[in-house]
Amino acid sequence: GIEKKTAKLKGSEKAVVARHEAGHAVVGTAVANLLSGQPRVEKLSILPRSGGALGFTYTPPTNEDRYLLFVDELRGRLVTLLGGRAAEEFVYSGRVSTGALDDIRRATDMAYKAVAEYGLNDAVGPVSLATLSGGGTDDSGSSASSLWGREQGHLVDLVQREVKALLQAALEAAVVVVRANPTVLEGLGAHLEEKEKVEGE
Amino acid sequence: GIEKKTAKLKGSEKAVVARHEAGHAVVGTAVANLLSGQPRVEKLSILPRSGGALGFTYTPPTNEDRYLLFVDELRGRLVTLLGGRAAEEFVYSGRVSTGALDDIRRATDMAYKAVAEYGLNDAVGPVSLATLSGGGTDDSGSSASSLWGREQGHLVDLVQREVKALLQAALEAAVVVVRANPTVLEGLGAHLEEKEKVEGE
Amino acid sequence: GIEKKTAKLKGSEKAVVARHEAGHAVVGTAVANLLSGQPRVEKLSILPRSGGALGFTYTPPTNEDRYLLFVDELRGRLVTLLGGRAAEEFVYSGRVSTGALDDIRRATDMAYKAVAEYGLNDAVGPVSLATLSGGGTDDSGSSASSLWGREQGHLVDLVQREVKALLQAALEAAVVVVRANPTVLEGLGAHLEEKEKVEGE
Amino acid sequence: GIEKKTAKLKGSEKAVVARHEAGHAVVGTAVANLLSGQPRVEKLSILPRSGGALGFTYTPPTNEDRYLLFVDELRGRLVTLLGGRAAEEFVYSGRVSTGALDDIRRATDMAYKAVAEYGLNDAVGPVSLATLSGGGTDDSGSSASSLWGREQGHLVDLVQREVKALLQAALEAAVVVVRANPTVLEGLGAHLEEKEKVEGE
Amino acid sequence: GIEKKTAKLKGSEKAVVARHEAGHAVVGTAVANLLSGQPRVEKLSILPRSGGALGFTYTPPTNEDRYLLFVDELRGRLVTLLGGRAAEEFVYSGRVSTGALDDIRRATDMAYKAVAEYGLNDAVGPVSLATLSGGGTDDSGSSASSLWGREQGHLVDLVQREVKALLQAALEAAVVVVRANPTVLEGLGAHLEEKEKVEGE
Amino acid sequence: GIEKKTAKLKGSEKAVVARHEAGHAVVGTAVANLLSGQPRVEKLSILPRSGGALGFTYTPPTNEDRYLLFVDELRGRLVTLLGGRAAEEFVYSGRVSTGALDDIRRATDMAYKAVAEYGLNDAVGPVSLATLSGGGTDDSGSSASSLWGREQGHLVDLVQREVKALLQAALEAAVVVVRANPTVLEGLGAHLEEKEKVEGE
Repeated sequence: GIEKKTAKLKGSEKAVVARHEAGHAVVGTAVANLLSGQPRVEKLSILPRSGGALGFTYTPPTNEDRYLLFVDELRGRLVTLLGGRAAEEFVYSGRVSTGALDDIRRATDMAYKAVAEYGLNDAVGPVSLATLSGGGTDDSGSSASSLWGREQGHLVDLVQREVKALLQAALEAAVVVVRANPTVLEGLGAHLEEKEKVEGE
Repeated sequence: GIEKKTAKLKGSEKAVVARHEAGHAVVGTAVANLLSGQPRVEKLSILPRSGGALGFTYTPPTNEDRYLLFVDELRGRLVTLLGGRAAEEFVYSGRVSTGALDDIRRATDMAYKAVAEYGLNDAVGPVSLATLSGGGTDDSGSSASSLWGREQGHLVDLVQREVKALLQAALEAAVVVVRANPTVLEGLGAHLEEKEKVEGE
Repeated sequence: GIEKKTAKLKGSEKAVVARHEAGHAVVGTAVANLLSGQPRVEKLSILPRSGGALGFTYTPPTNEDRYLLFVDELRGRLVTLLGGRAAEEFVYSGRVSTGALDDIRRATDMAYKAVAEYGLNDAVGPVSLATLSGGGTDDSGSSASSLWGREQGHLVDLVQREVKALLQAALEAAVVVVRANPTVLEGLGAHLEEKEKVEGE
Repeated sequence: GIEKKTAKLKGSEKAVVARHEAGHAVVGTAVANLLSGQPRVEKLSILPRSGGALGFTYTPPTNEDRYLLFVDELRGRLVTLLGGRAAEEFVYSGRVSTGALDDIRRATDMAYKAVAEYGLNDAVGPVSLATLSGGGTDDSGSSASSLWGREQGHLVDLVQREVKALLQAALEAAVVVVRANPTVLEGLGAHLEEKEKVEGE
Repeated sequence: GIEKKTAKLKGSEKAVVARHEAGHAVVGTAVANLLSGQPRVEKLSILPRSGGALGFTYTPPTNEDRYLLFVDELRGRLVTLLGGRAAEEFVYSGRVSTGALDDIRRATDMAYKAVAEYGLNDAVGPVSLATLSGGGTDDSGSSASSLWGREQGHLVDLVQREVKALLQAALEAAVVVVRANPTVLEGLGAHLEEKEKVEGE
Repeated sequence: GIEKKTAKLKGSEKAVVARHEAGHAVVGTAVANLLSGQPRVEKLSILPRSGGALGFTYTPPTNEDRYLLFVDELRGRLVTLLGGRAAEEFVYSGRVSTGALDDIRRATDMAYKAVAEYGLNDAVGPVSLATLSGGGTDDSGSSASSLWGREQGHLVDLVQREVKALLQAALEAAVVVVRANPTVLEGLGAHLEEKEKVEGE
């Protein structure tokens, strides 16, 4: 996702956004190939959308309702989210843009929850940082619950380290995928740049 | 406990939640066998409940009213709370889900209180961190009571370290239990997956 | 003090609370024997009290009004406050309960004031941490007074270290006393468990 | 930009502000020569402007609308922003003025976003510090979102280090440019000092 | 100053408060002998005063109005303030009371200002910590003024260290003085204990 | 500047304030001799002023309006501001007074801005700490702007170190100046003490 303003993209920006979205699609497809039961990318667009992004990549929900996310699916989503930035790095040899802002925010949020709330990081373990920082929950009615509100402690450092490592590993994985699929990436990117919209697979 | 949404669970999620609840039951039973006077698990369910969890494991109160918790009981509860995650780790070879979120929050709260308020950790000793962080109680009427509100100091680090260690040890203990009872776990899990509800023992 | 709920204690909890209160009494008596002019424990009870504790130990005020507390008296009170936990540790070989919650809070408050306000700790010296953390008092009318509100600095660490050490030393002293008086402790504890109330000495 | 007050500049201040603005222009032109498709400086002025700066350097927008900024463009803007200070350092042999205040603020803001939000710094990686410091976004409705509000952790230190290094490198680059163009800088500066306004190139 | 409650002091407390006040007087007199132009203690009392202290030591203002305090006078006041505690330490061989609470608060406040505002400490130098912590004063109208509100930084640690050292040195000096004047101290203390009020010298 | 109360100064305080103001004048003159185009001290007074200082030193504005301050002028102002304290140190052999309170506050504010906002310190570089601590400016509308409000990070430590060093160096420079001009200092000081007001030079 790259934030749209009002008018159609032109020139070099159009080319960059097309490769960015193609990156999400290529990486998302590779992730779906690895994990069974994952839905596939259905639409790509670089047409302006009200309140929307400069470009977007649409993946439909799975056939069955989902209430849980598995650790490999979560990692797959991080890699896919950073697929746009990875494509820019690969295609433009590191001359990346500010267009990954929203992707980075969403990936940071997901990685934070994985590490600090879902107990999916071995170094941190089955700890809820929010509960710990709140000094435990308040069923005792004591004032303890707000005491640690903005506490640090060594666990904040550890969580930040693990979140950062998780995100950097996801970006590296995304770069590996786009580097292994230069033809598909450029084909899809050029197609999207020309047609501004691509459906099906 | 795994948070319910609206409809019945299907497919792989149903299987996972059944093993998760069976994990609580198997570990809870092992803990009750070790500690005298502990109540036993009576019901398991993966049927949807309004405002409830995706699945739940019911343990009745003890025969006599209880006002105190002993240190071994407290540790037993932590191990039981993490029995669901342990079952997922064992059955699915580490491909765990986000379903332990609520279990982790409750275990973190209990472990925090054990270490920082009940004086049950030798490294921390008989110290109330909330009282200390509040700069003592306010019977002197001075403004001291709110001074340390979000203080850190080395004691916060120590408490975080001990809470984390307590939770990681509890998860390891739970894994040991489920690993030692593969037949019971799978039997109960498969039964619950099929019937969606199991009562008695 | 252990927090009461509504009904009479039964079974093992009754036994534990009786030993807990007997611990306060035995340690409090030993402290009074060491320090001249100290009042003696007069009543012990494990009968329910509205808004009160599961059990309580009553010590009357001294004959003369008191405005000051001496450093040895203060240490004696800490040891007595932790006498309940010490008795549980001794009698039940470390299988302690959550029943010392209120004792620990009161002891932490007292130890904090001794170290951070009354200048009774040599490592900290004659320093008022609350005054220092407030950036001095405000007779100058400047905004300095709220600046340090939740400051840390190395003094907070030092105070926490000394408070923790004071409380751990007090618990150790209490354990030494109960270990030296097993017969009195068990006699008084069993008597209290049976009669639910003991007066005089 | 240097903040204007009310009246025309005189004497040595006029000379300094003219060189400061000429510095922006010389560095901005050098940056545009390196990067394709960049607009050129069109106007320089040291005439007073209501609510404006002591002097200003005007660069028109590019021909096409821009929604993205590339990493080299962003670095170029930092170098140009610090071109005024660089000119003062070079022309007056280090006797710089307080006139770069607003330039420094704008450059710090841009460098912070590059490092902490746009994922343009390799040491930090694709991490949104604001999202991380907010404890993740709040789609879970939990209180986690405000917990880390003013948290530090090691990532704040890393971000500060990288922002500082980025700004110092930009200033050094600007100094290199002005040092390599002494004749143009002095010619443009002297011309601007005399005419108070220069248009075209 | 020891805080009064309602009734007359009795027994051992009366003896302690009398020595405490005599300590202030003996140390205050020694300080006045060293520094020229200092006023002398005029009254001592251990009679109850509404809203007042358990005991008090009255020193009249100097003959001329004073607007400044010199560094040696300030140190002298710290030593005198801690003279009460010093007397307790000496007379009762370290069995000190909580009676120095208010003296310690006032001394901490004065020492803090000497170090952090008046520039009287060489290690800290001519720095106003409150101004620095406020991010400079606000004549620029920017939001900088509240940014550092509860900041720490290494200067807070340095200030705490120096304040603590200043107070510990003052207490040591006070102890030296009372130890050198055992007869005067005991004579004055016993006299005050008996008469409850002493005037003139 | 030393804060006035109501009445005329007498005795030793009058002598001290006169030397303090003479110190500002002697140091200010030496600074003006080094830097071209600086205005000279015109009036000295130790007469009481409503809401004013115990003494004051008046320096007229420069002939031309000034919008900028140069780095050497800024350093010169710091040295002049600390000239009063320097005179006290020299004349009274270190027996300084609390009279420099306001000078120290103003110097700290100026030094903070030089280091943390004006980019005048090489170790810190062209960084706006207020902007960085605010998480960048808010033109993005995100909540990032208040996130770092009271953040520390290593930059706060560095800024504090540099501000402290700048102020200590300024005081040392001021002491060198007064030590080199003992006759002028004492002549002017004694004259001011006698006449209470000195005009012209």
